[in-house]
Amino acid sequence: MAKDGRPRRPRAETPKGFRDWFGAEVAAREGMLARIAAVYRAWGFDPLETPAVETVEALGKFLPDVDRPNAGVFAWQDEDGDWLALRYDLTAPLARVAAQHRAELPFPYRRYAMGPVWRNEKPGPGRFRQFWQCDADTVGAPTVAADAEICAMLAEALEAAGIARGDYLIRVNSRKVLNGVLEAAGLFDPADPERHAAERGIVLRAIDKLDRLGEAGVRALLGAGRRDDSGDFTAGAGLSEAQAAVVLGFVAARGATGADTCARLRDLVGGSAAGREGVDELEALAALAAAQGLGPDRLVLDPAVVRGLGYYTGPVFEAELTFETRDERGRPRRFGSVAGGGRYDDLVARFTGERLPATGVSIGVDRLLAALAARAGAGRGAEGPVVVTVMDRERMADYLAMAAELRAAGIRAEVYLGNPRNFGNQLRYADRRSAPAAVIQGSDEAARGIVTLKDLALGAALASGASHEEWRAQPAQVEVPRSGLVAGVRAILARRDG
Amino acid sequence: MAKDGRPRRPRAETPKGFRDWFGAEVAAREGMLARIAAVYRAWGFDPLETPAVETVEALGKFLPDVDRPNAGVFAWQDEDGDWLALRYDLTAPLARVAAQHRAELPFPYRRYAMGPVWRNEKPGPGRFRQFWQCDADTVGAPTVAADAEICAMLAEALEAAGIARGDYLIRVNSRKVLNGVLEAAGLFDPADPERHAAERGIVLRAIDKLDRLGEAGVRALLGAGRRDDSGDFTAGAGLSEAQAAVVLGFVAARGATGADTCARLRDLVGGSAAGREGVDELEALAALAAAQGLGPDRLVLDPAVVRGLGYYTGPVFEAELTFETRDERGRPRRFGSVAGGGRYDDLVARFTGERLPATGVSIGVDRLLAALAARAGAGRGAEGPVVVTVMDRERMADYLAMAAELRAAGIRAEVYLGNPRNFGNQLRYADRRSAPAAVIQGSDEAARGIVTLKDLALGAALASGASHEEWRAQPAQVEVPRSGLVAGVRAILARRDG
Repeated sequence: MAKDGRPRRPRAETPKGFRDWFGAEVAAREGMLARIAAVYRAWGFDPLETPAVETVEALGKFLPDVDRPNAGVFAWQDEDGDWLALRYDLTAPLARVAAQHRAELPFPYRRYAMGPVWRNEKPGPGRFRQFWQCDADTVGAPTVAADAEICAMLAEALEAAGIARGDYLIRVNSRKVLNGVLEAAGLFDPADPERHAAERGIVLRAIDKLDRLGEAGVRALLGAGRRDDSGDFTAGAGLSEAQAAVVLGFVAARGATGADTCARLRDLVGGSAAGREGVDELEALAALAAAQGLGPDRLVLDPAVVRGLGYYTGPVFEAELTFETRDERGRPRRFGSVAGGGRYDDLVARFTGERLPATGVSIGVDRLLAALAARAGAGRGAEGPVVVTVMDRERMADYLAMAAELRAAGIRAEVYLGNPRNFGNQLRYADRRSAPAAVIQGSDEAARGIVTLKDLALGAALASGASHEEWRAQPAQVEVPRSGLVAGVRAILARRDG
Repeated sequence: MAKDGRPRRPRAETPKGFRDWFGAEVAAREGMLARIAAVYRAWGFDPLETPAVETVEALGKFLPDVDRPNAGVFAWQDEDGDWLALRYDLTAPLARVAAQHRAELPFPYRRYAMGPVWRNEKPGPGRFRQFWQCDADTVGAPTVAADAEICAMLAEALEAAGIARGDYLIRVNSRKVLNGVLEAAGLFDPADPERHAAERGIVLRAIDKLDRLGEAGVRALLGAGRRDDSGDFTAGAGLSEAQAAVVLGFVAARGATGADTCARLRDLVGGSAAGREGVDELEALAALAAAQGLGPDRLVLDPAVVRGLGYYTGPVFEAELTFETRDERGRPRRFGSVAGGGRYDDLVARFTGERLPATGVSIGVDRLLAALAARAGAGRGAEGPVVVTVMDRERMADYLAMAAELRAAGIRAEVYLGNPRNFGNQLRYADRRSAPAAVIQGSDEAARGIVTLKDLALGAALASGASHEEWRAQPAQVEVPRSGLVAGVRAILARRDG
């Protein structure tokens, strides 16, 4: 009860960190995902939809870049006491599916998935608790050919989404090479992968922050730790200066060509067998990508890419947008990474105890959409429907028939269904709907067998200062016979599109 | 820890009542929803996507057919102590959106929404805790023209989905007429809608079960209550026999024509003003639907339709499939209702205190898909990709190039990425993928500049007993020059489609 004794009304609000998506936003995303899905399908990938809800046990603790395990998910206990949670990505559910349905699925299993994921993290500007991902993965393919295929398909998917060739770059690295480098620095023992696991996690996350913190910041995180501008202290990996230098040398090892990079990496991994295997794989991956047309203008080897996730076991990759846009204050802005992935050979083994190799990529749908929107600029808004206005309430059947006739001709159309008393409101509604045209028929026009068509786009252009000659040449309002309704509206639409 | 001291592995299982959707199932749903969305769009409806998560406060307690309020949703408390829940339908979030964004939205606001909803109810055969809905609603349109539009659009959407004209029927009733009848029976006082609310809820749910329980069962629920076969007792509405007879008379009031039905309803509502208004609206709705081509072969007035939901305030409607299919035991089966909706003028007022009229429909996506699948029968399965097999591991680049060439020609194609050692496994994989053809090139074929193409569909047909003549006329395996790869595969695909 509120203070005045009346029951309090519920608040009409999305929960904190959640948002709604309207009209053109939904349509833009659906269009983009349909084009990406067509690429995935052409490459032999099949759709898979897993439920939003998984057991906490099945999801595991694989949230990227989260130092506290278990944090970051929306979870609750069901009536039997089991913990359920909303999925935080599309990879953990895939691992569950591959284990649960391993007897029926064809392996290698190529699947794509598109849908929302949920993170119980602090929301921020442009950072929401529900967002879309669009993944493609191959489970059961052990060789680097599968990784190269994912990279080549990613390039085609980005181009299908609307990113021109030359506006993106796929950067590839190898977790095995990183492990080899850490082995050389005394921080990784292939025979005892658990040892130094915490330090390696800190190293991974530190390198992943190179863009944001710069070399000095990463060096601090590799060593004793780092205090940020707010005074908060982040514990470091505890590496010696010499060890940190090895890691930073690795991060900066990108050469002028892929061959140069591989030569430097071979030096850095020294005697590590895993490291040498990683370099071999990178060479093979680049060669197979090149065989599919992905030259160094689209795919480069770059040791600065590490990906924060702990579960990668082989090649890792990121797609970066290379063009600049302007932010709302006109400052140049780079979009950076819009997709990332890699090989994770141990994720299914969590369930089965048997290794099932897997590799895949996840596209950050909202980031990619934002980049496309920024690239396209303002542009013309989405086209609204033709609005049939209501002059005589009792002739509603006639107006409904007009809209039906327009739709039958393939023209998006609707009847105004608000209170028709104020005609100005009807035209204002048509404007808000971005309607290209309004259809008007009062009783006198009905008696004369005509309809009036109003070109709303032209009307707006004229109102904003077009010349008298243009007005005369292209009247914003015409009368046509009732039988010429469709032809008349088509003429207005053609004028707009022309 | 398990008994043997090793850590227990997580179970690879969907939570109880949840399921995964694979390949063709996902594609069938996406295709159907895209066709329905195109209809909605043509009628001027815009997409809206609300988050899966809402505050419990905003969702309210509108679950249909649930006697216990608050039950039936997945809910949890966030870190601030607020209760959040997964949406159980798409109507409650729309009411929240209409209130939250009322200053920016164009009214009347026509929107469609497609997505999963969640119910924390007891799962059963074919009954899952996550399922899809596909809704269209108009908010801010007070007149019956908006209800008629929804019905006409629903008919077009069902036909777009693949239900032929004649295979469905839209049945329309009015909550106002029902209230008028209850008023006549002394169970509804328009001046005091709270009075008898519980009894009316029981009456609504009882009528809604007519199909399942028959007239005697409904009569029991209208009166003292009903004990079912299991011995469970459901409390009744406590109506006298005379009152129950009035309600049952209403339910059975459908006449040979809409005019007959309306005449009977006018008798039944007697002096109730609301009841008379309801009958007027039904007449107007049928006339407006007829003006849009929806004659009595597609839309009928039928007082037996009530819809279980308490929030309806005017016309209510259901789309029923009228064709029979056979269940797995060959028994005839009717699919019944696949969509339902109605007018709910008070739902937005929960938030704002101001009435904002609304009407809409929800399509049960999974039921409609099941009906379409049953109607289509077994049919040919979805077509898999052409599989390029791997004879020489070291020539992977060549195989990837072949697949790329096929895709560039618009042919779905993939390279086998499992262990290539056992060639039989590769062909078995191609079979499981429903591949129409396999491409084979060993080192000798490469040296001769040819590839072998295997027609897998024909091979299967031959293996299952085709004649020797057919085998000779249409060899299941051909050699073509490497440069003729695309043409050769096209010939096999054409043979299959022909």
